[in-house]
Amino acid sequence: MSIELRKHFEKITPLTDQEFDYILSHFTTKKLKKHQYLIQEEDTVTNDYFVVKGLLKASHIDKEGKEYIMQFAMEDWWITDYQAYFSQTTATLHINCIEDSELLCLSLQNRDKICSELHKIEHFFRRKSNLGYVALQRRILSLLNSSAKERYEQLLLQYPSLFQRVPKTLIASYLGVSRETLSRLSS
Amino acid sequence: MSIELRKHFEKITPLTDQEFDYILSHFTTKKLKKHQYLIQEEDTVTNDYFVVKGLLKASHIDKEGKEYIMQFAMEDWWITDYQAYFSQTTATLHINCIEDSELLCLSLQNRDKICSELHKIEHFFRRKSNLGYVALQRRILSLLNSSAKERYEQLLLQYPSLFQRVPKTLIASYLGVSRETLSRLSS
Repeated sequence: MSIELRKHFEKITPLTDQEFDYILSHFTTKKLKKHQYLIQEEDTVTNDYFVVKGLLKASHIDKEGKEYIMQFAMEDWWITDYQAYFSQTTATLHINCIEDSELLCLSLQNRDKICSELHKIEHFFRRKSNLGYVALQRRILSLLNSSAKERYEQLLLQYPSLFQRVPKTLIASYLGVSRETLSRLSS
Repeated sequence: MSIELRKHFEKITPLTDQEFDYILSHFTTKKLKKHQYLIQEEDTVTNDYFVVKGLLKASHIDKEGKEYIMQFAMEDWWITDYQAYFSQTTATLHINCIEDSELLCLSLQNRDKICSELHKIEHFFRRKSNLGYVALQRRILSLLNSSAKERYEQLLLQYPSLFQRVPKTLIASYLGVSRETLSRLSS
């Protein structure tokens, strides 16, 4: 499972074998089956998760049981309830598996430790967070000003492989449109 | 203008006088009057801006001239077109002043330089970006699942001082609701 993580870090910063082994020693592994929960509302959120294999979603369920999807994560992406993770509070999101998944888990304590010990890892996580910030700003703009059709087309263009793997009901929930609207757009 | 910046950094990391003077030497200053533009669409985005005094907004204007507000920034906040800044491309947002403003400007080159030279500054910007990421996730969830009333109340709770300073038309544009809806909510 470690080769994927090394490639992922090395997209931003080169690492020696020794450095990578040291970093890897701060991760634990986790395997989950399709439909299993990684995090449920009110859980204490200990870890951020790097997806080695599989597909997950993080969502908020309102009082009427309606689901709003905050993010998907497939291979080479990270997922957790970031608000709860960074502030070490309990989850307001549910995270579960759309496919069988293999994960590498990094606690906040270990993340802060390797960031503090290795400047290049602090650099890696700063860059990742900057990229994530920009992606979220684009999504906000798209929620504010784009039609359902435009949002659908943007997502299809950005993440074509998601469409092969994620049921349409969930895509609709991510885009904030009804299942019926999505069916009309994608037919 | 520098005391505000020092306080801002020291909320996350302590600095010696020498370190702070060195950091400050990488910033330039800018003063703008109310209504003046800081960034216009298609401009090359060179800097990120720390607000020492004043109030600005970053927005997207669509083909019909309708304005969608990405963010406000007042004292102790940062503002730029982050997509353009991090990828060193041209702006898709407009940024202008709601009040006379005093700014400290940091180029991407200088930001990367001080992050690389001072590990604690890389740490500062990682932490800031993490906090920003979580705030944007909360806004996405609020756009997906909250009513106009709830969004208005959340904003009022989070940033009460914004409401004293920002015209209601702009608050409506930030929340993605009509001016009429907002008037009804806030009356």
